[in-house]
Amino acid sequence: MSETSSPEVHPAWLPPSAFRALGSRRVHVEASGPLADTVRAEVARACALFGGNASSPPAAADLILTLAAVPSSGSGDGFLLARRGAATIVIADGPAGLLHGLFEVVRRGEAAFAPDLADERHEPALGLRVLDHWDNVDVHPVMGQVERGYAGGSIFWHHGRLRNDLTRVRDYARLLAATGINAVTVNNVNVHRSETHLLTDRLGEVAAIASTLRPYGIRLHLAINFAAPVILGDLPTADPLDDRVRRWWRETTDRVFATIPDFGGYLVKADSEGQPGPFTYGRTHADGANMLAAALAPHDAPVRWRAFVYNHRQDWRDRSTDRARAAHDHFAPLDGQFSGNVILQVKHGPMDFQTREPVSPVLFAMPRTRVAVELQVTQEYTGQQRHVCYLPPMWSGVLAFRPDGDSGPALAERLSTRTPGGGVLSAVANVGDDPFWTGHPLAQANLYAVGRLAWSPGRDPAAILDEWITLTFPDAPRQALHDLMADSWLTYEQYTAPLGVGFMVRPGHHYGPDVDGYEYTPWGTYHFADRDGIGVDRTTATGTGFTSQYPHPWSERYESPATCPDELLLFFHHVPYTHVLHSGTTVIQHIYDTHFAGAERVADMRARWADLAGTIDPAVHARVTERLAEQLRSAEEWRDQINTYFHRKSGIPDAKGRTIH
Amino acid sequence: MSETSSPEVHPAWLPPSAFRALGSRRVHVEASGPLADTVRAEVARACALFGGNASSPPAAADLILTLAAVPSSGSGDGFLLARRGAATIVIADGPAGLLHGLFEVVRRGEAAFAPDLADERHEPALGLRVLDHWDNVDVHPVMGQVERGYAGGSIFWHHGRLRNDLTRVRDYARLLAATGINAVTVNNVNVHRSETHLLTDRLGEVAAIASTLRPYGIRLHLAINFAAPVILGDLPTADPLDDRVRRWWRETTDRVFATIPDFGGYLVKADSEGQPGPFTYGRTHADGANMLAAALAPHDAPVRWRAFVYNHRQDWRDRSTDRARAAHDHFAPLDGQFSGNVILQVKHGPMDFQTREPVSPVLFAMPRTRVAVELQVTQEYTGQQRHVCYLPPMWSGVLAFRPDGDSGPALAERLSTRTPGGGVLSAVANVGDDPFWTGHPLAQANLYAVGRLAWSPGRDPAAILDEWITLTFPDAPRQALHDLMADSWLTYEQYTAPLGVGFMVRPGHHYGPDVDGYEYTPWGTYHFADRDGIGVDRTTATGTGFTSQYPHPWSERYESPATCPDELLLFFHHVPYTHVLHSGTTVIQHIYDTHFAGAERVADMRARWADLAGTIDPAVHARVTERLAEQLRSAEEWRDQINTYFHRKSGIPDAKGRTIH
Repeated sequence: MSETSSPEVHPAWLPPSAFRALGSRRVHVEASGPLADTVRAEVARACALFGGNASSPPAAADLILTLAAVPSSGSGDGFLLARRGAATIVIADGPAGLLHGLFEVVRRGEAAFAPDLADERHEPALGLRVLDHWDNVDVHPVMGQVERGYAGGSIFWHHGRLRNDLTRVRDYARLLAATGINAVTVNNVNVHRSETHLLTDRLGEVAAIASTLRPYGIRLHLAINFAAPVILGDLPTADPLDDRVRRWWRETTDRVFATIPDFGGYLVKADSEGQPGPFTYGRTHADGANMLAAALAPHDAPVRWRAFVYNHRQDWRDRSTDRARAAHDHFAPLDGQFSGNVILQVKHGPMDFQTREPVSPVLFAMPRTRVAVELQVTQEYTGQQRHVCYLPPMWSGVLAFRPDGDSGPALAERLSTRTPGGGVLSAVANVGDDPFWTGHPLAQANLYAVGRLAWSPGRDPAAILDEWITLTFPDAPRQALHDLMADSWLTYEQYTAPLGVGFMVRPGHHYGPDVDGYEYTPWGTYHFADRDGIGVDRTTATGTGFTSQYPHPWSERYESPATCPDELLLFFHHVPYTHVLHSGTTVIQHIYDTHFAGAERVADMRARWADLAGTIDPAVHARVTERLAEQLRSAEEWRDQINTYFHRKSGIPDAKGRTIH
Repeated sequence: MSETSSPEVHPAWLPPSAFRALGSRRVHVEASGPLADTVRAEVARACALFGGNASSPPAAADLILTLAAVPSSGSGDGFLLARRGAATIVIADGPAGLLHGLFEVVRRGEAAFAPDLADERHEPALGLRVLDHWDNVDVHPVMGQVERGYAGGSIFWHHGRLRNDLTRVRDYARLLAATGINAVTVNNVNVHRSETHLLTDRLGEVAAIASTLRPYGIRLHLAINFAAPVILGDLPTADPLDDRVRRWWRETTDRVFATIPDFGGYLVKADSEGQPGPFTYGRTHADGANMLAAALAPHDAPVRWRAFVYNHRQDWRDRSTDRARAAHDHFAPLDGQFSGNVILQVKHGPMDFQTREPVSPVLFAMPRTRVAVELQVTQEYTGQQRHVCYLPPMWSGVLAFRPDGDSGPALAERLSTRTPGGGVLSAVANVGDDPFWTGHPLAQANLYAVGRLAWSPGRDPAAILDEWITLTFPDAPRQALHDLMADSWLTYEQYTAPLGVGFMVRPGHHYGPDVDGYEYTPWGTYHFADRDGIGVDRTTATGTGFTSQYPHPWSERYESPATCPDELLLFFHHVPYTHVLHSGTTVIQHIYDTHFAGAERVADMRARWADLAGTIDPAVHARVTERLAEQLRSAEEWRDQINTYFHRKSGIPDAKGRTIH
């Protein structure tokens, strides 16, 4: 593979047409500094395209972008969007707010210039909105260059070294800034030997990326190897309570900030799936995290410490161990022990980014700990960017979850209000060096939406989708695209693992069905299907007790099949195939019905997409057409394997007499 | 990995002690030429060790090795072993016979010098006894350096080039010569780009190996890429009927023989699992094979053409396609169309080296075609040299199979009698650069025995095992080792896939259980287990018709469950779990019983081996101890997964109430 930058990189949600309204106006920018320069350059580019005036005097301007006279006490990301006289004005809390205000105007298009525009205060709900790239510097022999990457190689690294041409990194920063993202982690949480060196002797490469991201207000984070003092520092230990180790981290961190003054912070996967961690030295995760926090504290930067810790060498025969419990069992007892700049980063569900999981109870079990929710934009378990799967409805459900019951605050509010500086939303990125950024062009919508939700978790995913369609496909019929994509996550759920039971994927690469693929493995991911029934008994009365990790009323709701939502039934309960769901159908008939329906819906999506030919860039249309063919093949494979498996096992025929092989 | 030759390579079945009887004698060798020089050097080495006389005058000799006055009309491999006066004599048909006679004396030890030794005529039953190495020149990203190799890297190649030090190749040739093997294929039948070049610009490397093998009478074969004329010759086609292609093969082959005058021949995997072949050009396998045969004929060398052709992209939903039928369907109609120097190389079973399969009907379906049987010494499906699994009882069963019924000739006789120059036995090798050659030291027995069986297919595998033990472990109690190993194949069968159903292994690497691992894949390897029963209906009456590929009486025997042998029942029939076997137990109870018994027998093997400490070289003892621990872990995993799977599916409890998880 040669390192060539395609001249034909897709503009994603920032095609020239997106700047039409802005670019045809008279604009005045009143601010100075690097981010203001970026704003000015954006305005100039837009006006050059559409004949506007990028340096209008204020009195004649249609749009004025300016900094607030009094600096904000907040993040500096916020701004006021308002109408003053004949002009639209953006008054930003700080330089970053100026940039976000500009892109708000871009997203609005003509509507930003409506005479009756009411005053709007914009402020991100969450202060740190970060994308984690699971990029390997070297090409990993099994995982490739980007772990769980479905869009080609890394945009940062190429064959073990920094790319010569960082143009795409700059383009990427620009795209992210337009969604509200303000940070990026540039390497995999599984930190192999080469990546470990990014922290010290290869810091120059990291600084080059940071400089490329900086003009768009994106700060750079690094995933670090807990054993770095041993690997890089020639120390005999990485014990977090050892003075030499603490000094090594402090001095190393000081050097990082000396080189990259706005460095964002560390991300750590420790004692997880083979990564090193404090357990090696008989220390707690709080000991480990606090050591790194102490090194970062003088620089006012956080360490994000992942809660994804479980026994990945479980004995499948042992039904008392439950991977779903693991993060809570490990971390909840440590509440109150973490330093103020430790952020515990928790996957949104208790297992691992399945299509349907309950919300992880760790997210609201630790009131004295800063907690971040981690989403997965890269579609590891949701079709790997070969399937259309618009994920924001799932994410939105997580953010809107009310841990204390229907009258309590939503998770997003809890995350944002209780932490100084605002909460944190992390998401595993889905881009690569593919010309369409995300392999599947429609997977760009997930990347776009994760930024928008991080800024504003309460927004309707359907509205975000429309916003994205309007920007990306200005000439396509919006409703047709909307209809094709809006429920695609539910469609994916229909033809894959049923009723929240999860997995049933091919081990290793996780693509395509294999019902028993993980059933007798050490990974803790089981469905326990036998000839009579299926599901995992996680009740407190007769099962693993996972339900007791939830507060009232959820512990009770999940505990009983009578109140457990259908879509999570098999996550919490082992029931007979003849169990009748709230929907009125039996479990087995639900399996058959949803699998036939899901595959049919994919066939329908394909037909709808074919109808859009002519309204979509032919290259995009061709790529999506090719992916939809694979999605249909795969959906039919899922349908048939799942149906056959459960028909063979249950012996119960389809009530509608359809073909089960 | 650095290319270092361990100074501690295990001597296998040729430790110094094996030469005690010979080395303490007065020996006269009366012959000249390269192989006679080898014999002389062997004698000299032995006598130097044990005080004998390596150049005794004939009159005073205890042992005389000489060539027959009249050259043999046979292969030249045979010899007469006899007693003349006070001397044992070997009168060889040709130089190779001299070498084989020498090693017969070595194997006999003192018994070779018994005064009452009767005249014995030794002649190999099969003329070509070849080991095929699935060695990749480069390290394959998935398969590693040796495909299905479980003993380290290749002994020939290292990181893409020929090893500098070929000492081990010479040692290997010596070991093989001592078993009766007379040819080696040095590269994988899956011929990747680098290996393709062995035929032309890298022929010098091949010649260097050939020169190293030659002193021990081992001829070198190459696996070739059918598309070589395109890859190497810049031709637009590899069509076997195209004159340019035919000329390219002729000229290329001439150059091979100009460089390596005793070159052995070609081996071809065509139109199989993605390899190129004549189907691309609308030609038959006879067209393809005959083209290569024409190039080889002037040099009196054969092409071995593998019959392992099947659809590896089968739809699991399609129950009418049967991979077991494929080789016969493809090749039987071509009988009579192959040139005289084409050898059709047929895996011993119709599927793929499973622990238990019926004998492939292709082996006796083509009376006008030279057919070779292919065995697999490397333990791909039989424990991967982590499990003790002495395979000769299986091979012996294949060679002793009587296609025409109990009064007809055995397969081995048919293979050897109907072909000019004798039949062919091919076997996939199991060695690597491991210090013990085969990873598991006890797997050396399989390598030893395959040579002995190729020479003499009727020999009792138990006797070969004793011969091997005596040579390899002169100080160990023979019976104890014999008891540990002799039935280890049946033990392995007990705890793995039951009753001939096959597979149930983890896809890809094929180690360890995964009952449904291949059930919904395109590979054609299914068990069709449902809640009521299991097995593949391959009958002619109601199934795929595979039974009709057998001649009378086997077609009838296999057709009915009443006459089908228990151990192949599920290969030929789909039966209820409650079906009663000839053994008197039900299928489900047989599954439970054999799986409990198999794991118990492994525990017993481990205990027996522990008792042998002190009588075995400590390094060997330690390695085997480590492997037996893994074998026991794995056997228990097999036992529990298989039992749980079938208990969940059938709902039938174990009659003996043992623990099923």
